[in-house]
Parts: sequence; structure tokens; C-alpha cells
Amino acid sequence: MDFAARIDAAIGHAIQQGQRAPSPGKLASALHYTVTPGGARIRPSILMSVAAACGDRSPALSDAAAAALELIHCASLVHDDLPCFDDADTRRGKPAVHKAFGEPLAVLTGDSLIVIAFEVLARAAHHDPEQAIKLMLILGNRTGMPNGICAGQGWESEQEVDLSAYHRAKTGALFIAATQMGAVAAGEDAEPWEELGARIGEAFQVADDLRDALYDAETLGKPVGQDDLHGRPNAVTEFGIEGAIAHMREILTGAISSIPKCPGEAMLAKLVTKQAEVLTPIKWRASKHLTPGE
Amino acid sequence: MDFAARIDAAIGHAIQQGQRAPSPGKLASALHYTVTPGGARIRPSILMSVAAACGDRSPALSDAAAAALELIHCASLVHDDLPCFDDADTRRGKPAVHKAFGEPLAVLTGDSLIVIAFEVLARAAHHDPEQAIKLMLILGNRTGMPNGICAGQGWESEQEVDLSAYHRAKTGALFIAATQMGAVAAGEDAEPWEELGARIGEAFQVADDLRDALYDAETLGKPVGQDDLHGRPNAVTEFGIEGAIAHMREILTGAISSIPKCPGEAMLAKLVTKQAEVLTPIKWRASKHLTPGE
Repeated sequence: MDFAARIDAAIGHAIQQGQRAPSPGKLASALHYTVTPGGARIRPSILMSVAAACGDRSPALSDAAAAALELIHCASLVHDDLPCFDDADTRRGKPAVHKAFGEPLAVLTGDSLIVIAFEVLARAAHHDPEQAIKLMLILGNRTGMPNGICAGQGWESEQEVDLSAYHRAKTGALFIAATQMGAVAAGEDAEPWEELGARIGEAFQVADDLRDALYDAETLGKPVGQDDLHGRPNAVTEFGIEGAIAHMREILTGAISSIPKCPGEAMLAKLVTKQAEVLTPIKWRASKHLTPGE
Repeated sequence: MDFAARIDAAIGHAIQQGQRAPSPGKLASALHYTVTPGGARIRPSILMSVAAACGDRSPALSDAAAAALELIHCASLVHDDLPCFDDADTRRGKPAVHKAFGEPLAVLTGDSLIVIAFEVLARAAHHDPEQAIKLMLILGNRTGMPNGICAGQGWESEQEVDLSAYHRAKTGALFIAATQMGAVAAGEDAEPWEELGARIGEAFQVADDLRDALYDAETLGKPVGQDDLHGRPNAVTEFGIEGAIAHMREILTGAISSIPKCPGEAMLAKLVTKQAEVLTPIKWRASKHLTPGE
């Protein structure tokens, strides 16, 4: 059960659909450039893990859901890197899309990826139309307004920010989509899986704050210190390094206890535990291991 | 059968869904600002007309399709107006979205509208899941890559342009979506309706070239001479004013003869004839009437 291979194949297939001739070559290249080589594919991997834990009743639907989710994530990275947002020169260790292809094609790349994400789900819908439509509704909800990553980014233009809504939309949304879409692709209800996604999202937010505070641009493959620069709230500023690590582990312990009853419950708990280790900066890793129930 | 009222209600309902609290207020306002007051709502009106001509079997699905199509059109206007594309100061007689709300919110407005468009269709899917999924596939195909308006815009970054693919994607795509989605919402096949949409799209492209050449910015509500400015191909440059008008009428005569057999065939033919008159610049209107079969 090689999730990474399934995810890459599904994404590759989705992008290829957009590249049948005649198509504008640079935009086609920009799409390919944006999704390969992939980053850690964290969100679709969580989706696949939850689907597997629930029995993965319809693997083709899980593949489509994973690809759709990652494409939305990639779209958000391309648009977030634009000069009017983070103005980032690099992403995943190479020039940001607007640096490599120019701003017009970066805007179009993001737009096209959003469209392709929904197309992937529509194309896989014949496997189970009812569940596919639920997948689209979850993905839409966690991408757009008022609960999605667009809303999250939108909060950064406000004078007064609802911090809980901001964090849940900005970072949490696609993690909630990951757990819920994994469950739905396997034929289960979405609702019981929201908390797991939300907590993993919180943990990743703290981990991101830690990395942002500790690592240099070369290791991270993107500019550091962006949060401080843009005045966003930050767990390290609030709790200090050790405090933020402790906070993150606490969140993940909560995540584990939120896992709904399912055949793969133990497997999922192990996976979250492993994430706690992976997300902890190297220097602090040995200091305190997180085990389920701890 | 007031199409305009149905379209506005469906769009209003879709946008409202994205504005439930807590949501970032400026982005919510920008969404509302972008879709109201509407322009001519030409594409969703064509969609409604075709659905009506085919019996409008599922009015709720037609409403959703019309709203989704117009939201995609609005998204494309917001992104096309950005400084990196047309750098337009005004749209529909008021400041362009990036002028009124800033560039970050303009990018997010376009992104959110694309997402809302697919959400609208997913939310209406319970009326007829199979047709709703077909609607999503048509909308995706005519929005993204390689056949959609994203591809159309993408061609403008190429050194060598496939002119036929460019025009069909840039202007034709959403008209093809209009006729095909209208038919599909009413339970009919999409394929026979492609030609009508494509020809109406061609006629609108010529009409746009005419308006661009003849009217001033105040009448048009957007900057004129943009085609010349950006070196795009143009029917007026190619055929002259009178020649372009004749060409447009010829295209619409072809459109009429392409209308598939359906209960409302005669009504649709009348509607296309009326469009020929509406699209002709005022000074030239009386000179030659287009009648079906002419």
C-alpha cells in the first residue's frame, strides 16, 4: 500500500488531462512545474491513511480525493507566493512559479489547479456519485469562503482578526478536508473526523512556527521569518521554543484521542505519534517521546 | 419566466453562503461587489434560454448552472483586470476589484468565486446527480486547461499562438458552456449544442472588437483599445467596420442553422436574431436586418 505512488500517479494523471494539445505550452509547463517534484504530500497522505483506516472501500475515489486536495494545496502555494502576498522568491527549493514563469502564468496556474481539482472529483464520480458529491462539498467548504483557505488568507487583510476562525481556515481547513475526505471516500460519515483534522492542523501550525523560528532559508526552501514580517500570530512568540514543542505534543495527544472507532484506529494513532516526532525540530527530538495516551 | 430574476436570486444565494459569520468582512464585501450589480448576464441568460427551449426539466439545476457559469465569468473578469494582465482601473462602470479592495483581495475574490461555482453545482446535485456531474465536467472543461478560459488567457503568454484554439478558449469557452449546460440541466445531451455556443462566442468576439474600436471608455465602462495595446488579433483590423459587422451577422446566421431540434427551436432562433441587432453598433443597426435563414 504505497500511498506516495498512488498520490503521484493520480496527480500526474490529472495534470496530463490539462496538457492535451493544442494547449498553451508555458501554462502547461507551469502546471507540471508546480506539482512536481511534490513536497511531503502531507495532506493527501493523511487522507489516504484515514481512507485505509476506514477500509478504503473505493480506492479510485480515494486517489481522486487525494489528488484534488493536493492540487488545491499547490494552487494556494502558488497564489500565496505572489508579490501581492508573501512575495516569495523560492518554494520547495526552486524558484516560485511567478519567478520562473511570470506573474500572469502564476495567477493562471493557481486558477487552473483549482478547476482541475474539482474536475478530478467529477471524473471519478461514477464510482460512487453520492460520496463524490460529498467530497466536492467538503473540498469546496475548506477551500473557499467562509471556512476555507481563501477565507484564511482573507483574514490577513482585516484590521480585527477572529484568531480562532483565522487559524482554522488558514492552516486547519485542508487538514480537516484531509481526514473528512479520507473517511467519505471510504464510504463513512465526515462529521466524526473533523476534530482529528483540526488538531493535526493546529499541530502543523505550531511546527511551522517552530521551523520558521529555527531554520534558515536554505534548509526550508522558502524565505523564513515571514510571520514576523507580516505581523501574524505565532506560537513561538507566545510560548517560546520549548513551550511551543510541548504545546504541539499536547495537541497531537488530543488528536489521537479524537480518532473515531474504525478498523485502522491503532494504525492511525501510530501515524500521529510519528508525526509528533517528525514535526519536532531535530535538536529537541530525543528529549521527550510522545506515546499514545501520554 | 423571468430569467434575470432567477439568475440574480441564484447568484445572491450562492454568495450569501460564503458570507456566514465569522468570515473576513472585506473578502465577503469584495465577493458581493464583484457580482452585483451584474452586467448583462449574457452567458447565464443563454443557458436559461437553452434550458427553456429543451423543456427546463429541472429548474433548480438550471438555476444552479446559470449561477455557476456567471460566477466563473465574474472570477475571470476580476483576475483579467489585475495589474499583471489588463491592469484595468474600471469594470462595469465602477473601480475594478483590485482598485477598490487591493490586489490580495482581488486574487482571493477570483479564487473564491471559482470554488463557489463548483459548490453551487455540488449543492444542487441531489436534484439529479448524474446531470449535475455532467454540468461540473462541462464547466471545468470550459474554465481550465486546455479548453477553458484559463487556457485562453494562457495563450497570450505564448510566442506562437494557435489562433483557433486561442479564440475558442478565450471567448468561445463560456458560450459553449452556456448552451451545453442549458441542455444538460434540462436532461439533454451536451454534444449537439457545442456549435451554437461556439458561434455565439465568435459573434461576441467580433462585437467586442467593434465596441472596442468605436466606443469611448465612458460608454463601455472599461478601458478601450486594450486589444491593440496588447497586440491581440482583431476582426476590425482584419475586415474594417462594415466588414466586421457583415462577418458577425454571417456567424449568427450559422448559429441559427446549428440549433438542434427541440421544442423551443423557433424561440431560440428569434433570440439569436435579436442578439445580432443588439450586438451591432447603433449607427449601423438599421442598415441591414438579420432574419433567420437570411
